[in-house]
Amino acid sequence: MTPIVPVILSGGSGTRLWPMSTPEQPKQMLALTAEQTMLQLTAARASSEQYDAPIVVANARHAEMIEEQLTAIGCRPQALILEPMGRNTAPAIALAALCANDPSAPLLVMPSDHVIEDVAAFHAAINAALPMVEQGWLVTFGITPDAPETGYGYIKVGEPVASGVHRVDRFVEKPPRAAAEAMLASGDHAWNGGIFLFRADAFLDALARHEPVMLHAVRRAVAEGEQSGSRICPSAEAFAEAPNQSIDYAVMEKSDRVAVVPVTMGWNDVGSWDALHAISITDAAGNAIRGEVIALDTNNCFVRSDGARVAMVGVSDLIVVASGGDMLILPRGRSQDVKALLEAMKDKPRRASTPPDAS
Amino acid sequence: MTPIVPVILSGGSGTRLWPMSTPEQPKQMLALTAEQTMLQLTAARASSEQYDAPIVVANARHAEMIEEQLTAIGCRPQALILEPMGRNTAPAIALAALCANDPSAPLLVMPSDHVIEDVAAFHAAINAALPMVEQGWLVTFGITPDAPETGYGYIKVGEPVASGVHRVDRFVEKPPRAAAEAMLASGDHAWNGGIFLFRADAFLDALARHEPVMLHAVRRAVAEGEQSGSRICPSAEAFAEAPNQSIDYAVMEKSDRVAVVPVTMGWNDVGSWDALHAISITDAAGNAIRGEVIALDTNNCFVRSDGARVAMVGVSDLIVVASGGDMLILPRGRSQDVKALLEAMKDKPRRASTPPDAS
Repeated sequence: MTPIVPVILSGGSGTRLWPMSTPEQPKQMLALTAEQTMLQLTAARASSEQYDAPIVVANARHAEMIEEQLTAIGCRPQALILEPMGRNTAPAIALAALCANDPSAPLLVMPSDHVIEDVAAFHAAINAALPMVEQGWLVTFGITPDAPETGYGYIKVGEPVASGVHRVDRFVEKPPRAAAEAMLASGDHAWNGGIFLFRADAFLDALARHEPVMLHAVRRAVAEGEQSGSRICPSAEAFAEAPNQSIDYAVMEKSDRVAVVPVTMGWNDVGSWDALHAISITDAAGNAIRGEVIALDTNNCFVRSDGARVAMVGVSDLIVVASGGDMLILPRGRSQDVKALLEAMKDKPRRASTPPDAS
Repeated sequence: MTPIVPVILSGGSGTRLWPMSTPEQPKQMLALTAEQTMLQLTAARASSEQYDAPIVVANARHAEMIEEQLTAIGCRPQALILEPMGRNTAPAIALAALCANDPSAPLLVMPSDHVIEDVAAFHAAINAALPMVEQGWLVTFGITPDAPETGYGYIKVGEPVASGVHRVDRFVEKPPRAAAEAMLASGDHAWNGGIFLFRADAFLDALARHEPVMLHAVRRAVAEGEQSGSRICPSAEAFAEAPNQSIDYAVMEKSDRVAVVPVTMGWNDVGSWDALHAISITDAAGNAIRGEVIALDTNNCFVRSDGARVAMVGVSDLIVVASGGDMLILPRGRSQDVKALLEAMKDKPRRASTPPDAS
C-alpha cells in the first residue's frame, strides 16, 4: 500500500501565545507541552513505517529553525516548501499536493501546533479513513466536542459510508454561543480540527473543479519556483495570485465525496494560554508552573517564565507569562484578550531599555 | 544662631520595596516618588541658609553612589561616615554627633528614605523646636496619625512645654491593631517618624549617662578610624562593640528632657509598595503606572517597570513591579509579604539565564 505522506502546515504567525510565541518563533517552534516542540511532536506522530517522509509547508523565515528541529529528531522531510507569503490553508496544501513524489499518495494534512494526547486513537481514525481515501474521498477528522466552544468550526456528522466513516452533512462556521450549545447537545456534531486525509490527486481534482484560478496560480508558482535540496521556493509573483482561502471554504464545503471520521483523541489546538492551562499538569494548589517562579499562597495560576524570575504571593486564577523582556498578566478565562493587547502595543513601539526610574 | 547640621541616615537595607530596592541599591537611592532620589529629596529638604552642610551616615558599599547623587544636586556633605556594619540608629547618630564640626550645633536627624510632602510644615515644626533644643532638650517629631497603623511606634503627647512643643509622656512600641485604634481615637498620640532634633553635646551627654558602653565604643571607632577627604571610616573592630540599639531605646525613652513636636506634614515612610501606591498619582481607572506598561481594562493597580514591558488586561487591585530581571506580583494590601518572598528565595539561588523552555 502507498505510504501516507504527512503534510505539516507550519504557517501560524504565533500571536495568541504571546509573549512566548512571536512572529520570529511561533507556537509550533516552542516546547510548550513537552520536552519536544509542537512541530517535533507533530512530525513524530506520523513517523511509523506506514508513513513516507513528510512535506512541510512553512514561512520562509523559519526554514532553518524547522530543519534544525526536525533533524534533531531524525526526521528528514522530502520537501520543505517555503511560502513567499501566507495565503491560508488551501494554497498551502495545493503546494504540497503538487510537490508530492507520488500523486496517488494519501496526504495526511496536519497543523503543526496541535496537541493529540491519544495518538493510538488518531492512528485508528486514520486507518478507518484509508479505504475511502483510496477511493478518492476527501476525509476530515471530527473532534468529539466536550464544551460549547465558539472558537472552532463544527461539522454535522451524516450517515455512515464505511466503518467509522460518515458523510459530512454540513460545515458550520465558528458559531455563536447558543448555536454551539445546541450542537454540543445534539450529539451529532464534531469540531473541525483542521486535520485531513486525501489522495493528492483527489484534492487537486477537486481544486481544479472548484478553484481553478487557485490551482493555476499554485501550479505556476511551483513551475516558476526554485529548488535547492529539499527546499522548494515557489514563485512569489505567481503564488500571490492564489486566492487567500481555507481548505474548508475552497474545497471541503463544495465537494461531494467528503467524509468525516469522528474521533476522541485528546485533541487541543492550544489556541490560548487558557487552552494550554487546561491541558497542563497542576500541583496541589492547582498551579501550573514552569520556569523560575516563587509562588506563595498562590492558587490555580498558570505561570511560565523563560527568563525573568517571577515572585508572587496571595494571588489566584491568574495567567502570568514572562518571555524575552515581556510580561503578560491576565485572569484565567481572559486569554483571548492577548489579541487586544498586541493591537494596543502596535501603536506603542518598544522603548529603548533605559530604566525610566534611573536617577 | 548656630546653623543646624542635617544628619542623614542611609542605613536601610532595602528589602521591602524589592525588586526595585536591593542591597546594592536600597530605597533611598531610588527615584521612587519624584525625579530625584529619596536621598536627594532628603538632602534638599534641609538645605537653606539655616543649615550647615549635612553629615551622612551610610553603608560603606554605597559611598560612591551617595557622593554622586549628592554632587548632582550641588550638595557637599561635611562628612560621609561609612559604617563598617549596621548597628541600628543610636550608634549611627553617635558617630555623627562625634564628627560634627561644632559640638553645640543642633543636629537634625533624618532617615534618608521618607517622604515629606509639606516641607513648610516640617520647617515650622523645626523652628518651634529650636528654643528647647538650644536649652538641651531632645526633640522628636510626632506625625499626626490618620490610620491605626501597626507598623509604627507611637508617642503619647504630654503637657506643653513651649509653643507647639510637648513633653513626651510615653513611647509605645509597634502596637497590636486594637491598641493602635485606641491611640488613634484618643487624639493625643502621634507616630514616631524617626526624625529628631537635638544638640550634638546634649545627645552625647544622654548617651554617656544611659549607654556609656555604646558611647565609648563609638568614640574609639572614630578615634581609631580613618579619614580621607570628607569620608570617615570608623574602626570596624571598635564599632562592633557598640550595642545594636535604636535611638528610641538607647536614649529617648530613658531621658528626662524629651519633647515632641506634633506635626502634620504629609509624611510617609514608603515602607511598602502599598505605602508608595497610597501616595502615587493615579489615572482615571485608579492605576498608578510607571514604565513601559500596556494596561487594558485594568483598575486600581500599581505597576512599575524599569525594564520589562508589562502587558496586562482584565485585572484589578494588583501590585506589579518589574526590575532587573525580577517580577513581583501581589494583591494590594499584601505588600508586607515581600519579606516572606525574599525569605523563600534565599533557599533558591538564581538560576543561570538558560530559558527552561528552549528546545
